[in-house]
Amino acid sequence: MRKVVKAAQSKKRRIIQQHTRPTAMKFIYSFSEGKADMKSILGGKGAVLADMTRIGLPVPPGFTVTTETCHFYHTQKKYPEGFWNDFDIYLKALEKKSGKGFGSETNPLLVSVRSGAAVSMPGMMDTILNLGLNDKTIQGLIKKTRNERFCYDAYRRFVNMFGNVVLGISHEKFEEAMDGVKKAAGAKLDTELGVKELKRLVELYKRLVEKETGEDFPTDPYTQLKLAVEAVFKSWNNQRAKTYRKIHNITGLLGTAVNIQSMVFGNMGETSGTGVAFTRNPSNGEKEFYGEFLMNAQGEDVVAGIRTPQKISELKKIMPRVYSQLLEIQKKLELHYKNMQDIEFTIEDGKLFILQSRNGKRTAQAAIKIAVDMVKEKLISQNEAALQVDPMQLNQLLHPAIPASHRGKILCKGLPASPGAAVGKVVFTPEDACKWTENAQKVILVRKETSPEDIQGMFTAQGILTSMGGMTSHAAVVCRGMGKPCVAGCAAIQVDTKKKVFICGEIVVREGDTITLNGSTGEIILGEVELMEPKMSNDFKLFMSWVDKIRKLRVRTNADTPHDAKVARDFGAEGIGLCRTEHMFFQEDRIPKMREMILAKDTAGRKRALEKLLPLQREDFIGIFTAMDGFPVTIRLLDPPLHEFLPTTHGQVENLAIAMGVTIDDVKRVADGLHEINPMLGHRGCRLAVTYPEIYEMQVRAIIEAAIAAHNIGVKVLPEIEVPIIGMAAELKLIRRLVEEIINRYQNEIKFTVKIGTMIELPRACLTADELAPYADFFSFGTNDLTQMTFGFSRDDVGKFLPAYLDKGLLERDPSETIDRKGVGELMKICVKLGRSVKPKLEIGICGEHGGEPLSEEFCHKIGMNYVSCSPYRVPIARLAAAQAQLKFPRKASTSSA
Amino acid sequence: MRKVVKAAQSKKRRIIQQHTRPTAMKFIYSFSEGKADMKSILGGKGAVLADMTRIGLPVPPGFTVTTETCHFYHTQKKYPEGFWNDFDIYLKALEKKSGKGFGSETNPLLVSVRSGAAVSMPGMMDTILNLGLNDKTIQGLIKKTRNERFCYDAYRRFVNMFGNVVLGISHEKFEEAMDGVKKAAGAKLDTELGVKELKRLVELYKRLVEKETGEDFPTDPYTQLKLAVEAVFKSWNNQRAKTYRKIHNITGLLGTAVNIQSMVFGNMGETSGTGVAFTRNPSNGEKEFYGEFLMNAQGEDVVAGIRTPQKISELKKIMPRVYSQLLEIQKKLELHYKNMQDIEFTIEDGKLFILQSRNGKRTAQAAIKIAVDMVKEKLISQNEAALQVDPMQLNQLLHPAIPASHRGKILCKGLPASPGAAVGKVVFTPEDACKWTENAQKVILVRKETSPEDIQGMFTAQGILTSMGGMTSHAAVVCRGMGKPCVAGCAAIQVDTKKKVFICGEIVVREGDTITLNGSTGEIILGEVELMEPKMSNDFKLFMSWVDKIRKLRVRTNADTPHDAKVARDFGAEGIGLCRTEHMFFQEDRIPKMREMILAKDTAGRKRALEKLLPLQREDFIGIFTAMDGFPVTIRLLDPPLHEFLPTTHGQVENLAIAMGVTIDDVKRVADGLHEINPMLGHRGCRLAVTYPEIYEMQVRAIIEAAIAAHNIGVKVLPEIEVPIIGMAAELKLIRRLVEEIINRYQNEIKFTVKIGTMIELPRACLTADELAPYADFFSFGTNDLTQMTFGFSRDDVGKFLPAYLDKGLLERDPSETIDRKGVGELMKICVKLGRSVKPKLEIGICGEHGGEPLSEEFCHKIGMNYVSCSPYRVPIARLAAAQAQLKFPRKASTSSA
Repeated sequence: MRKVVKAAQSKKRRIIQQHTRPTAMKFIYSFSEGKADMKSILGGKGAVLADMTRIGLPVPPGFTVTTETCHFYHTQKKYPEGFWNDFDIYLKALEKKSGKGFGSETNPLLVSVRSGAAVSMPGMMDTILNLGLNDKTIQGLIKKTRNERFCYDAYRRFVNMFGNVVLGISHEKFEEAMDGVKKAAGAKLDTELGVKELKRLVELYKRLVEKETGEDFPTDPYTQLKLAVEAVFKSWNNQRAKTYRKIHNITGLLGTAVNIQSMVFGNMGETSGTGVAFTRNPSNGEKEFYGEFLMNAQGEDVVAGIRTPQKISELKKIMPRVYSQLLEIQKKLELHYKNMQDIEFTIEDGKLFILQSRNGKRTAQAAIKIAVDMVKEKLISQNEAALQVDPMQLNQLLHPAIPASHRGKILCKGLPASPGAAVGKVVFTPEDACKWTENAQKVILVRKETSPEDIQGMFTAQGILTSMGGMTSHAAVVCRGMGKPCVAGCAAIQVDTKKKVFICGEIVVREGDTITLNGSTGEIILGEVELMEPKMSNDFKLFMSWVDKIRKLRVRTNADTPHDAKVARDFGAEGIGLCRTEHMFFQEDRIPKMREMILAKDTAGRKRALEKLLPLQREDFIGIFTAMDGFPVTIRLLDPPLHEFLPTTHGQVENLAIAMGVTIDDVKRVADGLHEINPMLGHRGCRLAVTYPEIYEMQVRAIIEAAIAAHNIGVKVLPEIEVPIIGMAAELKLIRRLVEEIINRYQNEIKFTVKIGTMIELPRACLTADELAPYADFFSFGTNDLTQMTFGFSRDDVGKFLPAYLDKGLLERDPSETIDRKGVGELMKICVKLGRSVKPKLEIGICGEHGGEPLSEEFCHKIGMNYVSCSPYRVPIARLAAAQAQLKFPRKASTSSA
Repeated sequence: MRKVVKAAQSKKRRIIQQHTRPTAMKFIYSFSEGKADMKSILGGKGAVLADMTRIGLPVPPGFTVTTETCHFYHTQKKYPEGFWNDFDIYLKALEKKSGKGFGSETNPLLVSVRSGAAVSMPGMMDTILNLGLNDKTIQGLIKKTRNERFCYDAYRRFVNMFGNVVLGISHEKFEEAMDGVKKAAGAKLDTELGVKELKRLVELYKRLVEKETGEDFPTDPYTQLKLAVEAVFKSWNNQRAKTYRKIHNITGLLGTAVNIQSMVFGNMGETSGTGVAFTRNPSNGEKEFYGEFLMNAQGEDVVAGIRTPQKISELKKIMPRVYSQLLEIQKKLELHYKNMQDIEFTIEDGKLFILQSRNGKRTAQAAIKIAVDMVKEKLISQNEAALQVDPMQLNQLLHPAIPASHRGKILCKGLPASPGAAVGKVVFTPEDACKWTENAQKVILVRKETSPEDIQGMFTAQGILTSMGGMTSHAAVVCRGMGKPCVAGCAAIQVDTKKKVFICGEIVVREGDTITLNGSTGEIILGEVELMEPKMSNDFKLFMSWVDKIRKLRVRTNADTPHDAKVARDFGAEGIGLCRTEHMFFQEDRIPKMREMILAKDTAGRKRALEKLLPLQREDFIGIFTAMDGFPVTIRLLDPPLHEFLPTTHGQVENLAIAMGVTIDDVKRVADGLHEINPMLGHRGCRLAVTYPEIYEMQVRAIIEAAIAAHNIGVKVLPEIEVPIIGMAAELKLIRRLVEEIINRYQNEIKFTVKIGTMIELPRACLTADELAPYADFFSFGTNDLTQMTFGFSRDDVGKFLPAYLDKGLLERDPSETIDRKGVGELMKICVKLGRSVKPKLEIGICGEHGGEPLSEEFCHKIGMNYVSCSPYRVPIARLAAAQAQLKFPRKASTSSA
């Protein structure tokens, strides 16, 4: 083997001398050449196959075409020079190693062709098995295996897969042919078909290919292999793969690698089988060997969920030797990778082969338990544990569940495939899921089984229910990844996608009917159940205590009510980063007073109306200060333009006029006067205070009086007054003076510190941060508005073109979801730098929607910010993301700047 | 003298040791201590007085309190420690030098107290003359001068001025008392009053002061002086001064200096007099000693225009020796300052004193002629000439005039005080001028005489007509500065401000009647005359040829029609920097086709409608290319959101529905679908092309086909296609590909270069310029939108708060007028730097409104841009401003970056 590779390398060197090869690229690595740390060029699967080969596991031999080759193929629209030459060399070596000949009519080598990018994308890329079969090689295989039925079954599977994946013929057309043959044979299951039927099926399949493509099915194994490699490359850019990458924010990869591996067969009869196993329970994290297998089956039969598999413990009874070997291997793998492993294996005629091992997808609950257990087992450190849990996955733990005491009617029970609970209206297609969601409906997607094409619909649904498939079915795996409740394999229901109903015994559930899913128990409940707030496990608390020791960013919350403040504090919030006072004005008892203020003809009238709002705001603030006892509370002064508070319909205008004792024309005149063409860029925020200082005056009074009142009942108050829409230093100077003058009136009663700071939400604020800093005790990025101004997008209007931008790949991500580092992020960096240049200890945080988004948070950490603020349910996510940011990009103090 | 100063300095040093003085500041300079280059601390007037003293001119002795002292006074709200101490020392020195005693009852020293900032602000600051007079010192003065009448005249003037300026009593109240005395004496003119009446007037004035202030008129000269200094300081921040600074964009000054100078008297009888003279004619630039004087008068009599003065040449007859001395001095001054001088002089009992000399205000026509003549006289270089002309003043030459052949009825004739022609409706108060202008009316402000309080109204009026005052009256001086037509001293009319009419013989002209002013001839014409395009003089052409040799910035124009292109080219435009294609769609024959396109239900329908627009756009472009033969033409693809093209009223919607053969509901549905909450941040510019590429496709076809057609008839075409609202590289990449694909269709017919570039109008475009540059042949800053996004202001909505911002000084200037260097400018700098980092020769220009504004242009020059683009009439201004920018901030190449 070494000799062959050496020969190949020396030949390659000669080729380099003859032609100009692209940067002396090595296109191919055999499994024994590759290393674990070559993931970016071998892909995750290729690197693992190489790694497993290295540690002595029984991996079927093979080689990997690099992701660089794929990248070259996509960017140059051709293969690099010398590539196929090298390919031949490695194929020859594989023949030698396996002792079989590719295309041999006596002892044929069959191979699998699999994609594998650097980041795992399960189910998204295309796979071809049994490649190398044709009417001649099959004869060799039959002689070798003495199992003609298996061989023709493999052959018809290959033609089907190749026809579908490589030649693009719909799978349903093959199914039709299959159905016809089964019907004629009177067979119910595929396994009931005999050699004759399978042979006929191969012929029918080939004819189908001929009809659909206008060309014969390729019989030359080498041509098959070449086409298969190209198909894998192409699949990198198919819509499913792009969608998956979009949803999972996967960017920066070169492409996919292609793994060519000699086939082993789980369907060679009753001493063969195939399975998927986890080193720990991926659902609850228990330390148990967990998995499923099917005897006499190929791998995709398990994953696709077409047959319901057996539990892995059953294997002990059937093949005790193989089972104990598998137990050994799984232990070795977990120790080796220091993470829970998801293992694919095949037993060929009693011999165990490991096909794949990767970090297993798991529920949030499992992730926490596994991480905590592994620390207790001294397998990993606390830091490693913190990195093992995906912050976004914590959503699962942070969202409501179904109370045990619920009185909903349990319709039936499926597999508890992904925990959590969801309520929604039933829909039957991914398209409907998207459509209904766009119309603000929450939906449960009900399918027989799901496939990669359904990704978008699954993403928008609240939960998924399938009638087929197991715990490792597509639906189950994807839902666990997304942190979305899923009940899978619920055989009690019959799904009729055409009629848009599912039937459970006598009961017919139609599109639009509401059901509740319990992904943790598998129960399906008719109608809506009121869900229960989540409760944190002890493992979770322990885990989060480690996380909190690591992170440098503090985590606050955005909360406008004492209730939200309380929830957030329970989730570990260390203060309020944004309390929006205008939300308080929209309440039913307040909006009339707000309108009275707006309709007032002069300052005196406005002050009278504001005087009525003052005690109400004060009460709000007392509640919030009390809930946040000991932590800072940032209160933003009025931000939106006044017209937002005015009624819009004629009836409302009329009512307001009557209530205020003015004419309808008066109201309309005021409304017309306040109308703005671009309200986002209008008379709002501190601009209101420049023209009507009495509004902020009232608000500051309410804040200070509330703080004094709270302080006097023993609450530790740390009020921070925040001025919105600051674009120039002179504004902040003016408003700060206004605020300070009011605070000074209470001088004798104030026994606490009051900070005055500003939102940073205009590009100009970032660019003039050095001028703002002298008047600000803190900066808080309002990245929602900052993003809108920087892009010149309004979130209200972006719907007309942003979807097209994401579809066409003009934008990798919606910048309202993740901070746009190049544009908005650059302004933030400038701001931090300028602000700290005049005030080195300046407190800087973020309170936009990005605050609880891990990637954005990592950026905030990197540029040296002090805290993030996010919605209450995001607080634990933000805490974990902050810790991971620190582990990935260590910084010393909480104020150090990048 | 030296000894006194030295003593003062050593005393000062002692004081420093005793108290902490502010930064060892020198508060006062005598005229012989000061230097010409100390303008920033002595003010313009103080520096000139010192300079003139140094070159040996007969300047009355005095000293100057520094602007730093004024600044200290305003910021600390008190005088710096030691100031009055120093003041005493300098006052003692002045007594010694003049040989008179301050407060002396035998030989009293009288002084003038005048303001004087570093930048000249004529008429804006307050002046007090004859200070030091009281009932006792006047006796000494009478003994000295033996002219009791003069002394009491001086006394009553002093009480009047001091009462008005220092004590804030309205001038009219003094006038009332004067009128009463005149009436009683049967006198028509002030000069007809005798000693008795003047004495009585002094008493009446003092009583008036007592009544108005509740306190006696201050008799102690030292108290008078102290109060006068304080009044000058305070006047720095009065509303008039602030308005003047605002209008003239004067910022960054410390304050005003105060000049205390021994009085000389032009009103000491028939051998005394006072006058104002220019070294050249400020109206037409002729090299002639030009000016006016009044015998037996004080300076303000000339400036205020109350008495109509004599021409300076008359002085030769009256006082030939003084006249020839004055002639010598004016020559010396012009040689010394290398600029046309505006000289104030007084003759006291046959002795000439020079009170002031400064660069004279002049018309644009005069400025050009003087600059050109001085170069021909080898007095200055071409570069110095280019710096002598205020670019904004060229407006005067660039605006329409009255054709000689006009048939309007000439009502009467006044003085041609400021050239140019204006048409407008007559108003009689500055307030009305503002009010009418706000209602989109063009007005002519008609006044007896103008005063500094009228500034705002004068600024908004098209032209000014006064019935009194001469060529150096307030109205004349201010209008020349503003480049606004003015007819002054039109004695033929009587102005009745109360009744809002003016009468000329039998003819009554009422408020709202339209008149036409010819500021170049002094003619007033009833009704509207159609004005004539300006024609450039040979001097102007020569001057501009020098300018063009100096500048590094190229100057293009913003033009959407062949006509505008032609006008701009005549003004020297070197191409079109912005041709807005949407303006073409708004034309009556096109808007229906545009609407048909918008109402189309699919791409095919849109293409059909666009097909009809194509030949029209092509014709436009052929005209524009032809007009700009040999110069580049930048054409911007469609920018505004589509809803801007839809009708808004019900009637229009109905008509459209009928014309298009659809229902009203159809039209409304489309309009509703296109409605945007923030259209500025909506679906516009290249975003339209991402969703409807067929629009840009049509436009690119029209551009290329037009370019080919123009090329084929011998026009040299340099088309540049510009993409608006680019915010990310992927957009530009996509649109560039689209544009290139269309261009390639014409591959064989194109014999010229087509450039493709982008507007830079979003903050993100600036921040990602390095990513955009690879896809852009040029950048063009759209600073209108960039300013709006950076500030988060919409120009449509800013009216509700921007005036308050300017009033309160939160903004020094409207950033839509001058580029905000700190915010918007910073983004521009980042953009230029990043863009050129990947494409060092990248062509960068500006096409926003700022393009023709000299300060903004200076910034564009400094950051290394290649060209500016502005409206056709601004082109010469931009050419001159570009040259001045180069002279002030030299750079080597046109692409060098700052």
